[in-house]
Amino acid sequence: MERIKVAIIGSTGYTGIELVKILNNHPSVEIIFLGANTHFGKSLSSFLPNFKLKKNTRIRKNSDIYKIKNLDVVFSCLPNGQLDSILKRIKKLNAKIIDLSADYRLSKRLNDKWYKKRKNEKDFKNFQYIIPEINKREIDKQKNIANPGCYATSILLGLAPIIKTIKSNDSIIVDCKSGISGAGRSGKLEHIFSEANENLSIYNAGIHRHMPEVESTIFQMANKKINVLMVPHLLPITRGIMSNIYIKSDRTIDVKKIYKLFNDFYVHSFFIKVYKNKLPSLKDVQSSNFCNIGINLFHDKKTLMISSVIDNLVKGASGQAVQNMNLIFGFEERLGL
Amino acid sequence: MERIKVAIIGSTGYTGIELVKILNNHPSVEIIFLGANTHFGKSLSSFLPNFKLKKNTRIRKNSDIYKIKNLDVVFSCLPNGQLDSILKRIKKLNAKIIDLSADYRLSKRLNDKWYKKRKNEKDFKNFQYIIPEINKREIDKQKNIANPGCYATSILLGLAPIIKTIKSNDSIIVDCKSGISGAGRSGKLEHIFSEANENLSIYNAGIHRHMPEVESTIFQMANKKINVLMVPHLLPITRGIMSNIYIKSDRTIDVKKIYKLFNDFYVHSFFIKVYKNKLPSLKDVQSSNFCNIGINLFHDKKTLMISSVIDNLVKGASGQAVQNMNLIFGFEERLGL
Amino acid sequence: MERIKVAIIGSTGYTGIELVKILNNHPSVEIIFLGANTHFGKSLSSFLPNFKLKKNTRIRKNSDIYKIKNLDVVFSCLPNGQLDSILKRIKKLNAKIIDLSADYRLSKRLNDKWYKKRKNEKDFKNFQYIIPEINKREIDKQKNIANPGCYATSILLGLAPIIKTIKSNDSIIVDCKSGISGAGRSGKLEHIFSEANENLSIYNAGIHRHMPEVESTIFQMANKKINVLMVPHLLPITRGIMSNIYIKSDRTIDVKKIYKLFNDFYVHSFFIKVYKNKLPSLKDVQSSNFCNIGINLFHDKKTLMISSVIDNLVKGASGQAVQNMNLIFGFEERLGL
Amino acid sequence: MERIKVAIIGSTGYTGIELVKILNNHPSVEIIFLGANTHFGKSLSSFLPNFKLKKNTRIRKNSDIYKIKNLDVVFSCLPNGQLDSILKRIKKLNAKIIDLSADYRLSKRLNDKWYKKRKNEKDFKNFQYIIPEINKREIDKQKNIANPGCYATSILLGLAPIIKTIKSNDSIIVDCKSGISGAGRSGKLEHIFSEANENLSIYNAGIHRHMPEVESTIFQMANKKINVLMVPHLLPITRGIMSNIYIKSDRTIDVKKIYKLFNDFYVHSFFIKVYKNKLPSLKDVQSSNFCNIGINLFHDKKTLMISSVIDNLVKGASGQAVQNMNLIFGFEERLGL
Repeated sequence: MERIKVAIIGSTGYTGIELVKILNNHPSVEIIFLGANTHFGKSLSSFLPNFKLKKNTRIRKNSDIYKIKNLDVVFSCLPNGQLDSILKRIKKLNAKIIDLSADYRLSKRLNDKWYKKRKNEKDFKNFQYIIPEINKREIDKQKNIANPGCYATSILLGLAPIIKTIKSNDSIIVDCKSGISGAGRSGKLEHIFSEANENLSIYNAGIHRHMPEVESTIFQMANKKINVLMVPHLLPITRGIMSNIYIKSDRTIDVKKIYKLFNDFYVHSFFIKVYKNKLPSLKDVQSSNFCNIGINLFHDKKTLMISSVIDNLVKGASGQAVQNMNLIFGFEERLGL
Repeated sequence: MERIKVAIIGSTGYTGIELVKILNNHPSVEIIFLGANTHFGKSLSSFLPNFKLKKNTRIRKNSDIYKIKNLDVVFSCLPNGQLDSILKRIKKLNAKIIDLSADYRLSKRLNDKWYKKRKNEKDFKNFQYIIPEINKREIDKQKNIANPGCYATSILLGLAPIIKTIKSNDSIIVDCKSGISGAGRSGKLEHIFSEANENLSIYNAGIHRHMPEVESTIFQMANKKINVLMVPHLLPITRGIMSNIYIKSDRTIDVKKIYKLFNDFYVHSFFIKVYKNKLPSLKDVQSSNFCNIGINLFHDKKTLMISSVIDNLVKGASGQAVQNMNLIFGFEERLGL
Repeated sequence: MERIKVAIIGSTGYTGIELVKILNNHPSVEIIFLGANTHFGKSLSSFLPNFKLKKNTRIRKNSDIYKIKNLDVVFSCLPNGQLDSILKRIKKLNAKIIDLSADYRLSKRLNDKWYKKRKNEKDFKNFQYIIPEINKREIDKQKNIANPGCYATSILLGLAPIIKTIKSNDSIIVDCKSGISGAGRSGKLEHIFSEANENLSIYNAGIHRHMPEVESTIFQMANKKINVLMVPHLLPITRGIMSNIYIKSDRTIDVKKIYKLFNDFYVHSFFIKVYKNKLPSLKDVQSSNFCNIGINLFHDKKTLMISSVIDNLVKGASGQAVQNMNLIFGFEERLGL
Repeated sequence: MERIKVAIIGSTGYTGIELVKILNNHPSVEIIFLGANTHFGKSLSSFLPNFKLKKNTRIRKNSDIYKIKNLDVVFSCLPNGQLDSILKRIKKLNAKIIDLSADYRLSKRLNDKWYKKRKNEKDFKNFQYIIPEINKREIDKQKNIANPGCYATSILLGLAPIIKTIKSNDSIIVDCKSGISGAGRSGKLEHIFSEANENLSIYNAGIHRHMPEVESTIFQMANKKINVLMVPHLLPITRGIMSNIYIKSDRTIDVKKIYKLFNDFYVHSFFIKVYKNKLPSLKDVQSSNFCNIGINLFHDKKTLMISSVIDNLVKGASGQAVQNMNLIFGFEERLGL
């Protein structure tokens, strides 16, 4: 089988390395280029010593990508705000771009508000925000991908099947917890072991930048405004996100109908498991592309809890990016995952 | 100064050992007896090797307590359900009893429902449930103490100042997380390192036994029924509880009024810190008797979050037990804490 | 390709589950039977929720294996001492047995001394102790496998290339550290999170049962008696073993010769990486079948340190078991690993 | 009782904060000044929210110390190499200086070799290196203190009683492990949670800068050159150091004599516990000023292991600094510890 030619820029961070691990085992992919801002000349195996690599590529400068010919797809694992300045040159490669940062997830208007970074309006239109289990039918194979954020993925997958039952202008509470790899591979004081270990802390309560990402996707799905009130926590573990979504209703909820909505919505979704009478743990999904969902109706019959867990580096980043690549190139959606 | 004579039964579990640490440094206490179901003859220092002990007592059989004369107070750190069978003999010692288990926290009716253990009705009346910052004025120095549970303490301290603003029959969501020492010192499979490490799991969602404890205390405080919907999580850390309390209102909330209610309520409470513009972390309270509380009104102006953190073994158990002892014996409330 | 038919007894412990993960992806294996002492009827996916299973086998009673026909290989992941009593019946299945316990690793004489369990002398002769990188040329495809222990594997791989340079009757110090999964999936008090977390402890110093395993293998390799003085530690992590081997010589050591011995010895060993000017970390091998080895000659030129790291559940157990299976059935040694 | 006036510069790192915790409870000390390079104006309670402070001092600029009058002692918790440049001005305060960095621990000659920082030769003579249990009789109350390093303290306390039995020019192996707080409070990539968690790594094997510190102290104690071959590891825990010291002898060792040497040497040392038939764990000493020591003679009767554990921030830094302060000011050695 013909294999597509893949490049990754920003390949030595946590999502970059996770992406390499997945693509290394993907039968229809050949990794042609790995770029970074540092570590030039180091071999990939020094970043993945415990891994059986097909090819031990050397790390090159991100900007060396401009010299590569015949690329099919460029994954950008650069931090937020860095793709912008080189996008023009990347586009000249005539490859599909799958951007794992937040740069093109929001509309230009929301982006300007939440990320304070102006970009060419036209570029926004060339990117599409795809969570395959939610909107893969809308995928346009000619466009690039703005790969969804980790918290947003876990929340949207927990909300999508029931979004139509939620009233406009209602507020939904999401108490969510992430492992520390979500903060990336950089030496911030609050993420050193001695600070984060044996602790649990809240950050950006009610002001996390995945909130507009969730809210605007809900608006596109259901054509209504719903407030998503996120309370993110930093967990003293490396990988995994748990999002507990709390929904209060005025009326009695029929939990069987809720189950049916979930089961119908995800009937063809291999990576989504809806639990019956059980709530999920992070261990259920770590190092996998699964999103496992538990449903609990409290004894007041009016308060519903949806608990959604994913691995932040896989379904919340690189796994979903490969899933989107599979869709764009017409491969089976699960291939290599 | 005269020192009161103290015995502890069940002294080798986590709350027992924490209690010994606190009482060892209490200027008005002399530890006379340490009982356990195992480890007879072992010295206390083998359980507290990193501690400067005033006296290196030996562990005796719990039942040896019947031979001790002139005790002022007996702390029971036995697991739930074990004090019952020996209470009759303990009462003959004519000492105050401070029970750290759940045995006498609920009314007989609720107890029978949630703990399935019948006890003499009269005994329930001899125990009082005291969280000093909430109801110390009601303390009856002639009675025993049913020391509050760890989750219940964190939730009630976060709710007490505003309980009157909550409507009858409303449901309050509490997303709460506890370190693993809360599960006690016993070899359950789900608590071994290889299972709990790098994980986050939910247990007893909506059916935790601290729910009726919280609800009935609310009923006593405010004379109304409020549903407290607890979702407890097992955190991969040793100590600490964080309870996030979510309250949805029909009307716009004035956050200044909320702050005022908290500040007024806790104006004389040394161990409660109400944060301004900040949410608490577990590190803020670990190994202390403090309860730190953060308040966040979301941008919808109708959803309020109270985040309350304590150390489950101190304010959630042994520290609060000593605080209650101080009140009963007329010591300064903070003494030794 | 024809696939061999595999059964696993004791399949729900940590080595059992790890073995299932590896065999599930092995192209020449079909898992026919999974046995356990509990969990009968549970599906495999409940033990591996984050895994893409080829077949979601149900757990059966270990003893149901007697009914299975046409098995090619039986892996026993039973705890030490349990295979003995059923070996007679297992042998009737006419399948190769690969035992991951310690039951048939030692000679009968040493076994009786260290494990206090008498067994039929003949059975010992039907088992061979194989670390492929050391003695795969001696493998007898007609015999069963006594799969090496985790500590022993890490130490022997670190010692094998230079064993001939060590004097008879010398003592070698091995300071070794293991993650807690090495203790198995059972609820011992010292392995619960609250005890093991944030701690480092030594156990069985100088009396660990892998010492005779190492010493007798050395005796077979080099025909000399060498004392291996193991000091095992319990590390607060889930997976991985690091063994630091310290060798003191009377004479000046030429480190280049040491490197040459290692490189020559392992020139055809895919799973062994000998580091140049670097010492290994556990991250280098976790979740893989690699054994990475670092060499350090101290400035006194007479003291040599070999640091050897493996994943205790893979190269130290299930991975090596599959490697041995590959050798016995004539598959490529790396297949599925 | 008159209290001595104390200042701390570099007070917001891990050793600084630990020092504040100890001095806050010291009956003969008043903290007058807390300096730092950042955080000016912040209150101490923001660094110690879980602590009952006598006085909630505000953090000032380190250089503001020059304005303080009547100081009795200045603790410097600055990183290595920073005290040098301001020492001249600090000396004008006419207070005793207790330096927790490595700046004045070595002789000028060794310092220049290992730390590459020239300083005034005279300054070295004004500092004395004191581990109270080893050389407190030599203390000169007119001089300053170069407070010993954490690894060096654990190793020297494990070696001191038997140093005379070790042959000149012999090499001693020390396999030692430290919690991550030993690396200080700064954002190095290798110390972030996602890197250090679930790992064990070796650093500076055979070239750690505490080696000359240990060797030169041995030379002063025993007037002989002994090579101390340190192999430091980074442990995934916050606090604690374990040093395993391995000594190989030509002749049979009488373990009773070893015990006698230890017990005699430490007969008056409250903070040293010599274990009988047991090896220590980190839990035995965490958060205390204790050093616990276990002794193990291997079955070859010629290899001896001494395992020594301390808390790196207490006995390995701030606790020992206070112990030294007590000695210099004529307080009881244990006061406040």
